[in-house]
Amino acid sequence: MIAIDWGTTHLRAYRLNAEGSIQSAKASPTGIMSIAGSDFETPLCEILADWNEAPDREILMSGMVGSRQGWIEVPYVPCPAGLSDLAAGLRPAPMGGGRRVLICPGLVCRDRNGVPDVLRGEEVQIFGAIAISTRRTATICLPGTHSKHALVHDNTITGFTTHMTGEVFAVLREHSILGRLMAPRRTDLDAFDDGVRRARQQGGLLHHIFAVRTRTLMNELGGASLADYLSGILIGHELGSAGLAAPVLVVGAPELGALYQRALGHAGIESELIAGDVATVRGLHAVAKLQERELK
Amino acid sequence: MIAIDWGTTHLRAYRLNAEGSIQSAKASPTGIMSIAGSDFETPLCEILADWNEAPDREILMSGMVGSRQGWIEVPYVPCPAGLSDLAAGLRPAPMGGGRRVLICPGLVCRDRNGVPDVLRGEEVQIFGAIAISTRRTATICLPGTHSKHALVHDNTITGFTTHMTGEVFAVLREHSILGRLMAPRRTDLDAFDDGVRRARQQGGLLHHIFAVRTRTLMNELGGASLADYLSGILIGHELGSAGLAAPVLVVGAPELGALYQRALGHAGIESELIAGDVATVRGLHAVAKLQERELK
Repeated sequence: MIAIDWGTTHLRAYRLNAEGSIQSAKASPTGIMSIAGSDFETPLCEILADWNEAPDREILMSGMVGSRQGWIEVPYVPCPAGLSDLAAGLRPAPMGGGRRVLICPGLVCRDRNGVPDVLRGEEVQIFGAIAISTRRTATICLPGTHSKHALVHDNTITGFTTHMTGEVFAVLREHSILGRLMAPRRTDLDAFDDGVRRARQQGGLLHHIFAVRTRTLMNELGGASLADYLSGILIGHELGSAGLAAPVLVVGAPELGALYQRALGHAGIESELIAGDVATVRGLHAVAKLQERELK
Repeated sequence: MIAIDWGTTHLRAYRLNAEGSIQSAKASPTGIMSIAGSDFETPLCEILADWNEAPDREILMSGMVGSRQGWIEVPYVPCPAGLSDLAAGLRPAPMGGGRRVLICPGLVCRDRNGVPDVLRGEEVQIFGAIAISTRRTATICLPGTHSKHALVHDNTITGFTTHMTGEVFAVLREHSILGRLMAPRRTDLDAFDDGVRRARQQGGLLHHIFAVRTRTLMNELGGASLADYLSGILIGHELGSAGLAAPVLVVGAPELGALYQRALGHAGIESELIAGDVATVRGLHAVAKLQERELK
């Protein structure tokens, strides 16, 4: 099969053998935001071109390609949701040449106050991470622009929350007075730890981030360390307000994932790190296998 | 005397009689950020020009004009600080023509964890508000780009906290995905109240703000109401994490002040609203009177 992760800013394709091992991988920056009109077929054919696939090989996709801004809108599946609910929610994209392209649904849940939350793309990574870890119950933390925390109980996603940590970090760094104080970043894990500790103190996030300014003003922190300090405060708040329970699987890019593991360590929570792309591939393969079995 | 509030983006001058009543007022957009080189004297002379003041009339200033980026840097006075500590911290600016120009110091404090906080300009408003309210003990809340909460005990500022509420609101509205969903704002106090309530629920600020997106996606909230919903979430977090104790004096612009009073009402806290400019003038007059008395 061909497994595809098609997000806002990227398109990644993996050619898998029957066991789900990656035979080859390709990536392009043609995220769904860069698609001219609604021609999703051209960039897809381009990335698949030199693999010379047999046209009956199934293509399975996840990510924002299934959103309102994507190729087709695949309706959200409500939680609790198992792998079979994902498989049942797959929708075919209008691909020419007789090729079968299926797109995974995202998930929707509501908290105890009835406020909705959504994800798209992470559902596949969550099931992939669960499969890799060989656990059936865990908390999955997917750091990023919009971090997700999902609760998996007995192989079913029971609920999740989104935290705008990465985006808030980016807008504060690029557009606020805090960013103007920052010198080019030099990794400073002590400053990061300080930030995580700050997040556990009294006063709230809107107060804590001002310490980026005041500690610079008082010469307690250099400009090159401020990004890590701010990052620690924000990640500390994300993890603190979520009240994650072990076992925690952190799924994402290794560098950011390691920072999350470090911050979890402040709260005495041990965690396991799983690379995001590996989780995606494993999840898509699991959906494909399940769907195949159900078709038989 | 002449009372002057010289901030980052504005210059406001007030001509007061001996009792501190405003005889005339002028304003210009020549904030300290717009000063060419270090020529603070020209815009000051321009704003005072047609008052034809006797040159021995004292000029007292507060605000960012006393910061490192201002006319002269007036050192921060540490808390606890009374009005006499402010008067003792006044520093003369290098004004020509034999005119006496004094600039008020800002304040610095440290919380129980040793993290510093600062303010500049608000110290005068706090003492002004206290004088207007005829209370000697109160919590003063000054909403704005960087909101300040100060504790005044027996006419002395014992400590304060800064909350970056206004700036976080602005950067999220102008630069984040939340802002891109917003239609031109139409005041929606129900949405504001919803936001304040959201801030009191589980999940933390980084999670709560994502509801701006999900509730739009689910057609529960219109684009024109999103700014008020976001504002409610942020102000709710500011006030919730500060744990303000009555009596609360809200000092600031009437419209924003009224929103803060409304949000305080959700927590059952009654408050009194005092206009920011009135508090500034009253505070500067009190400093001037005290200083005069001490010179005698």
